Amino acid sequence: MTHICIAYHSGFGHTEVLAKKVAEGVRNSGCTADIHNVAELNDALWEHLHKADGIIFGSPTYMGTVSAPFKAFMDASSKLWFGQVWKDKFAAGFTNSGSASGDKLGTLQTLATFAAQHSMIWVSQGIWPSSFSGDGQGLNRLGSWVGLMAQSDNGPASETNPNAEDQAYAAAFGERMGKATLRWVKGK
Amino acid sequence: MTHICIAYHSGFGHTEVLAKKVAEGVRNSGCTADIHNVAELNDALWEHLHKADGIIFGSPTYMGTVSAPFKAFMDASSKLWFGQVWKDKFAAGFTNSGSASGDKLGTLQTLATFAAQHSMIWVSQGIWPSSFSGDGQGLNRLGSWVGLMAQSDNGPASETNPNAEDQAYAAAFGERMGKATLRWVKGK
Amino acid sequence: MTHICIAYHSGFGHTEVLAKKVAEGVRNSGCTADIHNVAELNDALWEHLHKADGIIFGSPTYMGTVSAPFKAFMDASSKLWFGQVWKDKFAAGFTNSGSASGDKLGTLQTLATFAAQHSMIWVSQGIWPSSFSGDGQGLNRLGSWVGLMAQSDNGPASETNPNAEDQAYAAAFGERMGKATLRWVKGK
Amino acid sequence: MTHICIAYHSGFGHTEVLAKKVAEGVRNSGCTADIHNVAELNDALWEHLHKADGIIFGSPTYMGTVSAPFKAFMDASSKLWFGQVWKDKFAAGFTNSGSASGDKLGTLQTLATFAAQHSMIWVSQGIWPSSFSGDGQGLNRLGSWVGLMAQSDNGPASETNPNAEDQAYAAAFGERMGKATLRWVKGK
Repeated sequence: MTHICIAYHSGFGHTEVLAKKVAEGVRNSGCTADIHNVAELNDALWEHLHKADGIIFGSPTYMGTVSAPFKAFMDASSKLWFGQVWKDKFAAGFTNSGSASGDKLGTLQTLATFAAQHSMIWVSQGIWPSSFSGDGQGLNRLGSWVGLMAQSDNGPASETNPNAEDQAYAAAFGERMGKATLRWVKGK
Repeated sequence: MTHICIAYHSGFGHTEVLAKKVAEGVRNSGCTADIHNVAELNDALWEHLHKADGIIFGSPTYMGTVSAPFKAFMDASSKLWFGQVWKDKFAAGFTNSGSASGDKLGTLQTLATFAAQHSMIWVSQGIWPSSFSGDGQGLNRLGSWVGLMAQSDNGPASETNPNAEDQAYAAAFGERMGKATLRWVKGK
Repeated sequence: MTHICIAYHSGFGHTEVLAKKVAEGVRNSGCTADIHNVAELNDALWEHLHKADGIIFGSPTYMGTVSAPFKAFMDASSKLWFGQVWKDKFAAGFTNSGSASGDKLGTLQTLATFAAQHSMIWVSQGIWPSSFSGDGQGLNRLGSWVGLMAQSDNGPASETNPNAEDQAYAAAFGERMGKATLRWVKGK
Repeated sequence: MTHICIAYHSGFGHTEVLAKKVAEGVRNSGCTADIHNVAELNDALWEHLHKADGIIFGSPTYMGTVSAPFKAFMDASSKLWFGQVWKDKFAAGFTNSGSASGDKLGTLQTLATFAAQHSMIWVSQGIWPSSFSGDGQGLNRLGSWVGLMAQSDNGPASETNPNAEDQAYAAAFGERMGKATLRWVKGK
């Protein structure tokens, strides 16, 4: 089976809600998926990442880029970077914050650059922004391109925070990444 | 008088609406202001920039960064860059696009890096995002930091497009830049 | 045949030297390649891009990001962007400037974001930096990741400017992109 | 006295060598300076930052941006960010890595965006690159603009690693920041 690992950090649960929806979308594509909160850097994490055909990175945007626990994961991966063992795996990224824009692109650029340091191949989010096609309330309502951007209100994570559109968007994004990875594996 | 020049490009008029509001705000601070559409690269532009104590750069976000006419202005400034004649002038930036986020940070990073190449000093937008303090409809409703981000609907520029909040935000941003530049000139 | 188009701009010829070497590398992988200077925006360019399985973007770094003629090409592509006709093509990028670092990452980020706006898939440069493995004079001597960075001296472009290492690096980079695109086409 | 705090992290000592030279340069300008390794987040750090008129941020570049300990400092500052208590302080940044370019711009962009989130004012590095004026071995030999970029060899930090040029550059950069901050304080 083609396998995708979602490696994420979530400070207050909102990014975790997205990670689970991304995994659902990956499974809808016909791939298997597991999710790991990188706040715990254990052997299981590195093993799952090692066997994955694709990795989807997810982090909240804190102070303009990835969270500190996510950065600790990035730095811990430098041992693998020296061996370039993730080379040619597919990669993609998602982020969440409290405002509509709020430097989320900084997080996605950091994730895409990180993937490039591992010589991975970056899959863009690929879903046309709903903000150009009507009420701005559908999939990709914020108009993102490099990866997925979601927005959550300043309250507990729940079934409706981030909202239904952003959760549906996360699933569609996971499905796109799954399909792309299937094609990449098939072409080997 | 302390003088600020707003050097902008506007493809469909929305960014020009903002440029005029920014100039109003600058004047409210006690500085003088002029605005120039950099689609015309004439001697008057370079002279006004030369005498300015601060420059505010404005461009729509097209395909992830500044518009081509704005980039042509940036490249034309390379003659001045060789002499570093804008060194230590104050600088700030604003951008507009059709979606809430939409890679506007890419434009602001390009503008801030451009200002750094000219050894200028970059004034952040400085206004707390309304999205953290209520209905997300006030000043800085998109949650921007490096410069001002506005959003316009896909229709003609008008007194209400970009909307009243974004126009008020542009004026507040201009006033902040004016006050900072006054202080900088006074300290010389 | 799997086909790759190199769409570049070159102000003084150095980036064109690289574009030709990238094309050589692409051909070494078993793909066909053509190169187009985007300073001319003609029908042949858009047709070649349309039929290509992968596109490699190349621009000098001017004032912190892509050159104005390259940006004009990016903006002209917005008609195709509305239809997302380049979706799922492979993409990669290269840049050149006069200093070792010099904001070349700004150009590569702009190119990668541009490719993401077209929903393309970004192939990292993939070659371990020689600066970590000896004298810093081999392939990827500057330590780049998102795309290829080269450096040219402030004189005419020639067989030795950019230098032999950077030209060999451009060929290796083209070959990597060719192999990746072959796999992607095969997996369809 | 006008005071500048250098808040840095150093994994192997190279960035610390730079931090000390930056502090020397600040003192040469007539300001006082202290340096703090942010790997320790204690009350003294926050008090020194609070009283400073300017803050210079320094971090090695790890995996494309600031180190994890530096990011932990950034995230810890979010309590102060809510109150915007650093608003209008001057800021600048420096970074170091093992290769000539190596995504150091990613670190500087992260630092400049972080400063903008605190509504600070960003002082560019301001020193013309030696790579355009001779042998590429003097001040700013890598051609940086947004902040200072240095390069260290893969061995212990010492009086000659980073090299003498980069250490002299760090002092010149600190002096520029000191002079700018003196002017800003005087203009209040």
